[in-house]
Amino acid sequence: MIKIQLTNRQHIIIDIVKKHQPITGEQIAEKLNVTRATLRPDLAILTMSGILEARPKVGYFYTGKSPLSLVEDYIKSIKVKDIKSLPVVVEESTSVYDAIVTLFLKDVGTIFVQDGGFLTGAVSRKDFLKIAIGNTDIYKVPVGIIMTRMPNIVTTYDDEPVYNAAVKIIEHEVDSLPVVEPVVGSDGKQGYKVTGRISKTNITKLFVKLGEG
Amino acid sequence: MIKIQLTNRQHIIIDIVKKHQPITGEQIAEKLNVTRATLRPDLAILTMSGILEARPKVGYFYTGKSPLSLVEDYIKSIKVKDIKSLPVVVEESTSVYDAIVTLFLKDVGTIFVQDGGFLTGAVSRKDFLKIAIGNTDIYKVPVGIIMTRMPNIVTTYDDEPVYNAAVKIIEHEVDSLPVVEPVVGSDGKQGYKVTGRISKTNITKLFVKLGEG
Repeated sequence: MIKIQLTNRQHIIIDIVKKHQPITGEQIAEKLNVTRATLRPDLAILTMSGILEARPKVGYFYTGKSPLSLVEDYIKSIKVKDIKSLPVVVEESTSVYDAIVTLFLKDVGTIFVQDGGFLTGAVSRKDFLKIAIGNTDIYKVPVGIIMTRMPNIVTTYDDEPVYNAAVKIIEHEVDSLPVVEPVVGSDGKQGYKVTGRISKTNITKLFVKLGEG
Repeated sequence: MIKIQLTNRQHIIIDIVKKHQPITGEQIAEKLNVTRATLRPDLAILTMSGILEARPKVGYFYTGKSPLSLVEDYIKSIKVKDIKSLPVVVEESTSVYDAIVTLFLKDVGTIFVQDGGFLTGAVSRKDFLKIAIGNTDIYKVPVGIIMTRMPNIVTTYDDEPVYNAAVKIIEHEVDSLPVVEPVVGSDGKQGYKVTGRISKTNITKLFVKLGEG
């Protein structure tokens, strides 16, 4: 896949075809006051890109396809599993203080919380800061009390495009998403197991990689 | 901008040019057993996309640009001023508690600190959390005491490519950079004025925009 900046003449050709379709190469050349041979590369580029369609013995048509960017297709081909990080997970019974210590030790922005192997909640740096300046006894209160609880947690999965995960992060104003897999407990209870995390840091790193080529 | 899927023949032409550069259009045509006229559209596409370079009276060269390096060029063309947000700035004398309240009210991850109109420091959510669980009296201690102080702050500027700002964010492990402008005080003192901020959120939003096309 390559991308090309269209020339002025190519834009004019598109406009001519839009107005006069079907129109032959000779007729376009005439309108532009150039030879058919001069236009050959322009028409090749416009048909190869799918903007114009050439029908033998009829002429050129405008396909109505909007010029797409390569960047777009490439970005949508990258999957969550390609860039996810390891999750940091604590049990619901962990004290808020110990959860904050874990946050610092692992240097993450959000901690996920589980109970019986199932994802049950999430706590961000912002949530912890709000609790820390309040009147909560952070040494005694378990993280399960202050966390955002399922189903109010936005999740992603291995095969989701990173683009979709980034949209969720922006729309729901969170720093990080747990990457999850559905699991069924021995009692038949359904839920999610956390297998990774995708944060704004992962996406910023991916942006740097795209810029490096 | 349009996108084009390269044909097999175009890939073969790239390989021929890589091996035999500089090589004329006639020589390429000979190797492929076709006429020079047949190749004209292919060579036009390859030079317009920047993959090959044509030097008059010398021949074609391979520029070393791959289709992906075009994504690279595009990303590097976006400037900090194109996507920066408004900065949130407090005075050095502001209490830690009031600075945290400002952080929540403005919903930002990092606060910048100024003194006499000059940038003097920065405090992140992580810094505040560390202070909040310690023994500091957050109502009395001013933010100037606990902030990271200049010159230990990584900055960016309006005309810097966002790519470079993203590299700084990742390498220095910070969430946000102040966008600065050099200023000279009335006493001749030199420093920086904060005119904006670039965070991982801005870069994630840019990533989403790139994916939207």
